Amino acid sequence: MMKLFGYFRSSAAYRVRIALNLKGLDYERAYVHLTRGGGEQFAPEYRALNPQSLVPVLQDGEATLTQSLAIIEYLDEMYPRPPLLPLDALERARIRSLALAIACEIHPLNNLRVLRYLQHTLKVSEEQKTAWYHHWVNTGLEGLETRLARDPATAKFCHGDTPTLADIVLVPQLGNARRFNIDLAPYPTLTRIEASCLALDAFKNAMPEAQPDVE
Amino acid sequence: MMKLFGYFRSSAAYRVRIALNLKGLDYERAYVHLTRGGGEQFAPEYRALNPQSLVPVLQDGEATLTQSLAIIEYLDEMYPRPPLLPLDALERARIRSLALAIACEIHPLNNLRVLRYLQHTLKVSEEQKTAWYHHWVNTGLEGLETRLARDPATAKFCHGDTPTLADIVLVPQLGNARRFNIDLAPYPTLTRIEASCLALDAFKNAMPEAQPDVE
Repeated sequence: MMKLFGYFRSSAAYRVRIALNLKGLDYERAYVHLTRGGGEQFAPEYRALNPQSLVPVLQDGEATLTQSLAIIEYLDEMYPRPPLLPLDALERARIRSLALAIACEIHPLNNLRVLRYLQHTLKVSEEQKTAWYHHWVNTGLEGLETRLARDPATAKFCHGDTPTLADIVLVPQLGNARRFNIDLAPYPTLTRIEASCLALDAFKNAMPEAQPDVE
Repeated sequence: MMKLFGYFRSSAAYRVRIALNLKGLDYERAYVHLTRGGGEQFAPEYRALNPQSLVPVLQDGEATLTQSLAIIEYLDEMYPRPPLLPLDALERARIRSLALAIACEIHPLNNLRVLRYLQHTLKVSEEQKTAWYHHWVNTGLEGLETRLARDPATAKFCHGDTPTLADIVLVPQLGNARRFNIDLAPYPTLTRIEASCLALDAFKNAMPEAQPDVE
């Protein structure tokens, strides 16, 4: 059985949980607490598994996989039903681009280690930290909303009427934005798609609140 | 013919130039100056093309593609020779994970718009800005060096003896690090692979210094 090392609040682990659920794959869970004792991701045993001290890690037999998007593409290649990417190259590119627009342009600027650096090393105020968070999330979501709203390929989900890699990355980011009190009213397309996703058990059961390690 | 909207210094555009060169694909070039007049990426005509105001954009016929990694996967699917990813799912996952470890964990924290925000909005000092840059690059490269050095799949290139997506993302990041005076001595595996890459015309001709819009 596969084993997922994650943390309830990590967006990247949340993405992989959704993908595993959509594929109907059962897996063992291991918990890496990102704040307790300075962060269990920095412990030697975890660093041996992932020298980058990030979650998630997925173990499949002898193999150790890292980086959520690489893990999800792997799951989609190994367990093709239901597909998380269609067969057409242009459609695949659109979906990957939407996913990367979050995974590369929004999430990296607002995760725990960056907010900590702002606070502890740059000594920015609470207001400045919040403004930073809001600035990058809103910049990214504005572009996404425009792209999705104007494109006829957008339907019930980001691409067509079944969930894809793009939805898997979108939902955790919106959950995160809500936790930081970002007003999502300017993003009606994004929140409509989010509601379609969260109506599905695969998404609902992957939420941070539904995890055994939630606090 | 395809058309690439880029900027000589953009790492993301540099990645796509390498991929196009490795595939032997000819393309038309358009230049988006990221600093002139407040940034041509914010001009209405360019925003219509890419609402996220980022380079690169690749036009292929009617299609407009964004996000460098999505573009490169598209090129690899449309023009499979020479492959930038092998056929085996685990090998593909390893290569994508290496590429994403740079594209998601290093590059987003150090690109122009982030350094500008630090300087103009958070008013950090020159020293603090440099320390920020060095911190995230070194954190990322340390993890990568460990991963590559210990894994027998690492060879002349990041994965085996032909260049892949991982090398395409690595080389621009190391060029960028050098421009910011980062000491690369602690990363002998990375710089050895970089040298293998830069011995190839596909990489050499994609360098910022070799572009018509270089300054």
